[in-house]
Amino acid sequence: MPTIEEESGTTVLRRTAEHQPPRSWRSWLIGRPLRTADAPDQAIGKTVGLAVFASDALSSTAYATDEILFVLAAAGTAALVYALPISLAIVALLAIVTLSYLQTIHAYPGGGGAYIVARDNLGGFPSKIAGASLLTDYILTVAVSVASGVAQLTSAYPSIFPYRVPLAIGMVLVMMVVNLRGVKESGAILAIPSYFFLAMMLLTIGSGLSQYMMGSLHTVVNPPQGREHVAQSISLFLILHAFSNGTTALTGVEAISNGVPAFKEPRSRNAGITLIWMSAILGTLFLGVTFLAGKMGATPSETETVISQLARTAHEGRGYLYIFTIAATTLILIMAANTAYAGFPRLSALLAADGFLPRPLTYRGSRLVYSRGIVALALIASLLIWLFQASVNALIPLYAIGVFLSFTLAQAGMAHRWWKAGHLSPEQEAQEHGSILRHDPRWALKMVINGFGALCTAGVMLIFTVTKFRDGAWLVILLVPILVAIFSAIHSHYRDLAAHLSLEQYGGPPRISRQRVILAISGVHRGTLAALRYARTLSDDITAVHICTDPVEAETLNRKWESWGDGIRLVVLDSPYRLFLEPLLGYIEEIAARRQPNEIITIVVPQFVPRHWWHNLLHNQTAMLLRLMLLFKPGIVIIDVPYQIE
Amino acid sequence: MPTIEEESGTTVLRRTAEHQPPRSWRSWLIGRPLRTADAPDQAIGKTVGLAVFASDALSSTAYATDEILFVLAAAGTAALVYALPISLAIVALLAIVTLSYLQTIHAYPGGGGAYIVARDNLGGFPSKIAGASLLTDYILTVAVSVASGVAQLTSAYPSIFPYRVPLAIGMVLVMMVVNLRGVKESGAILAIPSYFFLAMMLLTIGSGLSQYMMGSLHTVVNPPQGREHVAQSISLFLILHAFSNGTTALTGVEAISNGVPAFKEPRSRNAGITLIWMSAILGTLFLGVTFLAGKMGATPSETETVISQLARTAHEGRGYLYIFTIAATTLILIMAANTAYAGFPRLSALLAADGFLPRPLTYRGSRLVYSRGIVALALIASLLIWLFQASVNALIPLYAIGVFLSFTLAQAGMAHRWWKAGHLSPEQEAQEHGSILRHDPRWALKMVINGFGALCTAGVMLIFTVTKFRDGAWLVILLVPILVAIFSAIHSHYRDLAAHLSLEQYGGPPRISRQRVILAISGVHRGTLAALRYARTLSDDITAVHICTDPVEAETLNRKWESWGDGIRLVVLDSPYRLFLEPLLGYIEEIAARRQPNEIITIVVPQFVPRHWWHNLLHNQTAMLLRLMLLFKPGIVIIDVPYQIE
Repeated sequence: MPTIEEESGTTVLRRTAEHQPPRSWRSWLIGRPLRTADAPDQAIGKTVGLAVFASDALSSTAYATDEILFVLAAAGTAALVYALPISLAIVALLAIVTLSYLQTIHAYPGGGGAYIVARDNLGGFPSKIAGASLLTDYILTVAVSVASGVAQLTSAYPSIFPYRVPLAIGMVLVMMVVNLRGVKESGAILAIPSYFFLAMMLLTIGSGLSQYMMGSLHTVVNPPQGREHVAQSISLFLILHAFSNGTTALTGVEAISNGVPAFKEPRSRNAGITLIWMSAILGTLFLGVTFLAGKMGATPSETETVISQLARTAHEGRGYLYIFTIAATTLILIMAANTAYAGFPRLSALLAADGFLPRPLTYRGSRLVYSRGIVALALIASLLIWLFQASVNALIPLYAIGVFLSFTLAQAGMAHRWWKAGHLSPEQEAQEHGSILRHDPRWALKMVINGFGALCTAGVMLIFTVTKFRDGAWLVILLVPILVAIFSAIHSHYRDLAAHLSLEQYGGPPRISRQRVILAISGVHRGTLAALRYARTLSDDITAVHICTDPVEAETLNRKWESWGDGIRLVVLDSPYRLFLEPLLGYIEEIAARRQPNEIITIVVPQFVPRHWWHNLLHNQTAMLLRLMLLFKPGIVIIDVPYQIE
Repeated sequence: MPTIEEESGTTVLRRTAEHQPPRSWRSWLIGRPLRTADAPDQAIGKTVGLAVFASDALSSTAYATDEILFVLAAAGTAALVYALPISLAIVALLAIVTLSYLQTIHAYPGGGGAYIVARDNLGGFPSKIAGASLLTDYILTVAVSVASGVAQLTSAYPSIFPYRVPLAIGMVLVMMVVNLRGVKESGAILAIPSYFFLAMMLLTIGSGLSQYMMGSLHTVVNPPQGREHVAQSISLFLILHAFSNGTTALTGVEAISNGVPAFKEPRSRNAGITLIWMSAILGTLFLGVTFLAGKMGATPSETETVISQLARTAHEGRGYLYIFTIAATTLILIMAANTAYAGFPRLSALLAADGFLPRPLTYRGSRLVYSRGIVALALIASLLIWLFQASVNALIPLYAIGVFLSFTLAQAGMAHRWWKAGHLSPEQEAQEHGSILRHDPRWALKMVINGFGALCTAGVMLIFTVTKFRDGAWLVILLVPILVAIFSAIHSHYRDLAAHLSLEQYGGPPRISRQRVILAISGVHRGTLAALRYARTLSDDITAVHICTDPVEAETLNRKWESWGDGIRLVVLDSPYRLFLEPLLGYIEEIAARRQPNEIITIVVPQFVPRHWWHNLLHNQTAMLLRLMLLFKPGIVIIDVPYQIE
């Protein structure tokens, strides 16, 4: 039912469009379109939220302990005792990072994360770096986790090795479709493998611990062959290297802070509790694995993972429980990609809303997710997988630098925020771009904690960069500034455009006092006459133009024009090079050059429309090309007068 | 200087467009554009004509003798003596076919060949079959000859085998570019390898023959291992099989008849003399090779060709002369593709002019060749090479059926023509579609010769079809009817279109008595105002429509419209599914449904044009999509009002 408002003489009718999206292959694939008003129903609770956002973080427990042991093993078996203290330090860092993001989630209920924190507390340039590094890392998360999942499959079934690239790209596309179905539905689908992994890990660690308590814990039977290496001495550098390697456990922790708006109200509270759960589970699993690895004497090896050694020791052999644990681990490694599917589109929509990425990325598709961001992520990740031929070894050095860069910026931003909060008077409130700032009596302590966290994550990032530089980290170091430059270019385009379209201090367009019409004709037929009829409603100053490549044809045209042309002037332009567009454009430009300021030139192009679109293959698409070339000339309007062949 | 004619009150200005094609990468690649008036300078003489049109036919001497000997060898070495009589029979068939095409060339100076002869003498259906089979065969000629050239290279350098497909496609594209440079220039480039081959073959055969005369001819030293086979007895079937295999020597003979217009005046005479030369050379080389092969005791083998055995015997070892002969043979095998590049575009232009293929194929590009046909041939042949992975063995069974089908139709057509000529009175002339028919006193003899020729070529075609059916000939049997069906569909589209556009008994379009204007706006800015200003020149009945997905944005728009909207009615359509196009289309359709017969609905779309085309990636392309969807609705005209961001 339309509502009519009439204000200051302008009638405004408002009504709801009745268009119902029809059932189609799209609704079969991704589900029925959802109304904008349905958005609150699509919000997710804590259980699903944990599955959606935690899979990346939790999956890292599958390899983080191995990463520490590998480094320590270089100094001999004795050095392995340092694994537990190092893991404790990493969990402490995890706690700091979690605390920082918890504050962020409450401060920025519209979705925060490193980009927003940096934007509001550090300024434009750091925020762009945070955005660029996170986007890069989300793309790498998809590529690496899917490639590692495929690698697990190809080591089980070597015959599928030649098909690994299409297989990996297929998985990326399946995840794309699942995510296009909406957060709620994809969360429900993905909750199963996530909780399955969690259950198997708790079971394995729990059974290991209880055996340890009762003194019945065995050491690993037939431990795999460790790496051959030159024995190093235990040094601070070695310990730091092991520490930084182990911090891969932290990747994915930032995802929830970007995804706050996906949660049910009270959003911040729900997201915050989910984050605490996630960190607690991550810390527990990680410490549990490291502790048991030490007690069982698990050996870091390229042929068998620590998880596998742990599982077959705790479950006493390769029975069902062992197989389930390994299967769950493989699944969660692939599922880690899903966290990126949740994070990338939200972050790119935030960046697009601020004018740093193409605005269409803010568009929410039929299932209320940022579908263009999801598709873009799938395409870029597929390209990356294809370029690197789904090789995990080639992709992994690119990974994690971006995450730690964004951690550093987020923590530094929070530290600066505490500084600002400390310098407010107790009752004062300050409205910032994306949050409200209040005084906090313990600002100094919090600032120190976040500052220390920032130093730690910056250190880890530097170690990563240096140790992996030649293996491919340089690519990320190159990519982030390129992305930042692209952000700036896009931003200046939008700013420029807004300035040019702005109505501030604009006097209105000049009046049109004269219309000149050029009717481009290739022959005289019913379509031409329909266009001529339309042209007559525009102006009396009409010129028909025909480009002639065949003198015989031009003769026929002249004759027909005399009887049907309504007395309109006809210009026949001979085209010695058989070109069509160029002479016509030349003629139009000639007319346009003599244009008065208040004169407008209208080009009328008859366009006959065949019954089926593919019939267009049988005809020259002159009208379309002409439009594309004339668009850039000021003062020219192009009119297609379609003539439908019934 | 414009000439002005004024007849019956209509002014017609005629002048030549001054547009000079600029130098660009295209002119670098294929040469400066040529004027239509330069066409006579592009005509070729007999020497170049032989190189352009004969390479396919002459290249067949490189394998035709082998094909005969392979079949005969199945009945033991004694059977090889039949090779010479069989070759003589093939040369007799060549003479008949040549005679027939010679008559065709003189009867159809506008370019004849099987398609035109069948069209004018047998009717529409046979002519379409002739056209389809020739097109198929031209495509196969390119694929087979390039694949065989690449096979020669890969047998010399096995390391390039993995790159054979890109290599072959690269060759096809190089030939495409050479042919896009124009007949004259490509002919000059290709004359060198053709005449080089001719010279080496004449030298080899001449030296072989003189050794034979002087009694110093050796037999082949170390003859290659022949095929292992079950000895068959000499039967009529065996002889016929050998005969039909040897007729591959005839492929390519038809090319000149399609290309008559490429020759200098007097066209028919020049083309005819070239055809006679070509057939004479072809016959001589073919007989010479077969004769010497018999005298030297050459063995058919898959590891060494007869030409190679001949050359190393005649030139006494593998010296320079031997190497040159082999190199020339490899070159001419690749060059055979060029005959198809000369024939395919001309034939497809003839078919397009008759409305059986898309009309744009009749367009002559900047170098006065049918460039679209050349590009189409290159693309289809590349696709074929890719599908068959450049395998000669997979492609060769598809080959030659089309040629013999067209030979049969051409000869049958000529036979019917003689019948018609015989039934004219001596002084009578009959104007046919593409030629003038005159009485010929020896019509009966000529009719019998062409009829006999048709029977022979039909027999060969049948033998080919039966013996190669399972190897892939079925594909051609399937393809030709599909092509014929496509021809018919295209033809009926053009006929239908002409009927719908025809002005015969047309009373002119109805007058427009009312214009309704719908102005689609996404915001209120300078571009919108420019469009509004334009809309005002069209009508007073204007409605602005805004599709609303964001209520806040709609509020702003309402407010701005009140001050800038000039009192024009605004309709705000809420789009609950965040769709844009569909609700707008629905609204327009609603208005269009109430349209009066004399009313026209104009949709005005403001389109801001960014400075650089790639900026469009940053914006939704709504205007473009809207146009595509509205084109099919009668009575609706779409106007883009561009607003250039300076």
